[in-house]
Amino acid sequence: MDVSILSKRSAFAHNSILEEEKVAESLIKRGIKVIEINRGDPPAYFPTPKYTIDAYIKALRERKTGYSRDSGVMPLVKAISNRYKKKYGISLKTDDVIVTAGVSEALLFINTATINPGDNAIIFRPFYNQYLTQLKISGGVPVYENYDEANGWDLNPESIKKTLKSLKNSGRLKRTKYMLITNPNNPTGTVLSRKVLEEVVDLANEYGVFLISDEIYDEIYYNKAKFTSLSQLAKGVPHMILNGASKDFDSTGFRIGYMLLPESDKTSEELKSKLAEFASVRLCVNTPAQYAFAESMSNEKEHNKEIKHMVSEIESRVNAAVKVLKENEKIRVVEPNGAFYILPRVDFKSLKIKDDREFVDRFLKEEYVMLSRGSGFGADSHVRVVALPPKDILEYAMDKLNRFCDKYSK
Amino acid sequence: MDVSILSKRSAFAHNSILEEEKVAESLIKRGIKVIEINRGDPPAYFPTPKYTIDAYIKALRERKTGYSRDSGVMPLVKAISNRYKKKYGISLKTDDVIVTAGVSEALLFINTATINPGDNAIIFRPFYNQYLTQLKISGGVPVYENYDEANGWDLNPESIKKTLKSLKNSGRLKRTKYMLITNPNNPTGTVLSRKVLEEVVDLANEYGVFLISDEIYDEIYYNKAKFTSLSQLAKGVPHMILNGASKDFDSTGFRIGYMLLPESDKTSEELKSKLAEFASVRLCVNTPAQYAFAESMSNEKEHNKEIKHMVSEIESRVNAAVKVLKENEKIRVVEPNGAFYILPRVDFKSLKIKDDREFVDRFLKEEYVMLSRGSGFGADSHVRVVALPPKDILEYAMDKLNRFCDKYSK
Repeated sequence: MDVSILSKRSAFAHNSILEEEKVAESLIKRGIKVIEINRGDPPAYFPTPKYTIDAYIKALRERKTGYSRDSGVMPLVKAISNRYKKKYGISLKTDDVIVTAGVSEALLFINTATINPGDNAIIFRPFYNQYLTQLKISGGVPVYENYDEANGWDLNPESIKKTLKSLKNSGRLKRTKYMLITNPNNPTGTVLSRKVLEEVVDLANEYGVFLISDEIYDEIYYNKAKFTSLSQLAKGVPHMILNGASKDFDSTGFRIGYMLLPESDKTSEELKSKLAEFASVRLCVNTPAQYAFAESMSNEKEHNKEIKHMVSEIESRVNAAVKVLKENEKIRVVEPNGAFYILPRVDFKSLKIKDDREFVDRFLKEEYVMLSRGSGFGADSHVRVVALPPKDILEYAMDKLNRFCDKYSK
Repeated sequence: MDVSILSKRSAFAHNSILEEEKVAESLIKRGIKVIEINRGDPPAYFPTPKYTIDAYIKALRERKTGYSRDSGVMPLVKAISNRYKKKYGISLKTDDVIVTAGVSEALLFINTATINPGDNAIIFRPFYNQYLTQLKISGGVPVYENYDEANGWDLNPESIKKTLKSLKNSGRLKRTKYMLITNPNNPTGTVLSRKVLEEVVDLANEYGVFLISDEIYDEIYYNKAKFTSLSQLAKGVPHMILNGASKDFDSTGFRIGYMLLPESDKTSEELKSKLAEFASVRLCVNTPAQYAFAESMSNEKEHNKEIKHMVSEIESRVNAAVKVLKENEKIRVVEPNGAFYILPRVDFKSLKIKDDREFVDRFLKEEYVMLSRGSGFGADSHVRVVALPPKDILEYAMDKLNRFCDKYSK
């Protein structure tokens, strides 16, 4: 074949979070111990609870091992519906719920189902990198909005309004397929405030933009934060919630996610039936894992105990890491109150390191601590810390980071 | 939103195999027992073997529950490589193996990685319906070739040569990204002969077309058939093998598939590194299932015992069903020797039923047996039978089919 076998859009298939892992691998091969604080993977530090493992084993013993209902096994659909009813007062019908292989597959379905080449979607910076990747692979063009660092990384409704107005005036609004927010946020660790969420719902309603809220960390908030699900505010407004078992249920490797479309307007209805078709094309999600979570999600007593423990640990780990970072004058930190990420801004003008990519690369090679570069999340001049390891390791790593900044001080 | 939120290509997201299931569901709700012979789902009739379940439980107990290596955990990659070394004499390097959520996800990656809008791929009729669906969702246009029903559904090298020549002459060859065959075949149940496979490899080499062989049923053949993997014949010729644990290891619901790219030419190398990037975008496949199959695939003693039993059962079930169908003058059957499908041709000219869609619909509603319509596989005038149920149920269902044809005889 004379020409490349690759498609043009395949150029966008890249995961910036994993960039450093090849370097880390070669260090580990040389016998070096690397502190890995780059992946948001709770089971690496909090063993998946026994009640979930037991439910999974039960499903296997019962030979729930064949293909299953394409949009999710009924007991799981019911468990998800019950969770939303109890937690957020939302009523979900069977067809409103579509189970996916993690939020990753949900993003794939959403973009494939909605994006024609050249269509837009409103993405907020900093973003979880897969939002942009999946949008671009589908031929979409992001319209960027920003979380407001000066205001604790919250949303900025005035700026959103300006963007929507300009999309309307330029005739692009009808090709703007969705606006996607993340709450609690990755990579900022921010829980969005109810007040601005309400304003954003009003704007989406006014301008007719479909709202998506990725709430995969919806039980992980602390420092007295209050979490509001978009589903509680967007009644009557077309929207979708993304969630899953990965983080709240401490089981990233099981790949159980879901999409919820609680509304019954024309757009929501055509979207949910099309998303179900995408689910049916790929047959199903791992069957025993679905049955496991049907049981895990229904076991509120065990789950409440486990999540309470995990969140209180995360709170103390995040706060310990932030405390050390605050000693560093070359860094500015917005204190997180959700998820388990910290996104410090590095003052590169005061350093002999040019940008976040070089920073992360050198820090890994010289100090054996693996962070992620902020530019992979649309946050140049930042680095992302995953504050999951035990406090002493985190403090040790953050102390290293402070001394690393001193070492490269101009 | 005034215009539809859906993308144009989303119109192709549809799984014809599942079309009848909504009708069946409503029958079942009315308390009617439906014989389901529409899904190629071995665990529905052969419980997944204990040695695999035990390996899965072990992985769960060992808390293999976090994110894992994006292209597949190393023990599984090694087990797959060992399998191909022992079975087919093929040497695979780590990067030659990419683990996917079933062949479904492999097809998604392949099409997304290679197909620009308007690009071609050579697909053989009858096809496994997802080949066409995934190609079209990616904006690709199929160039159809045919398995030769008159010659036991084998490949027809002369016809393939004609097609390749015409693609070359029209300048379309450089936009023909791959040629995809299935061996043993779904939906025909045919094991392709070594001789024609060799000719096809030569043609692919001569015309520079990338060859893909879906060999997900590679241990399921009988009636004295001999199976040859494309990997044994295509040394030095750019190609890819698709396979997985679903069928040979009787575990469709675990969603473990893989792509193998044994060659090191420029096309194979750029393809394997790009496919690995797609794997990294979606993070990973269910982690404990990967560890389970690392162990299952290495346990040759147990596996050989199980597969021998399953294949001998399938042989007797397929042959029993074929025997009953041969009594029917309105039907013509090519005897299968692989997988577990039968694809009889129905002589609609002699029936008061116009086509395969009406046939399958009526047969389900009137006789409570669920088949799949052949047109969903590009085989108009055929119906697909999944010959997995016990012999007496299959014979009963095939007998019903014969009497159904009599009932609607002109």
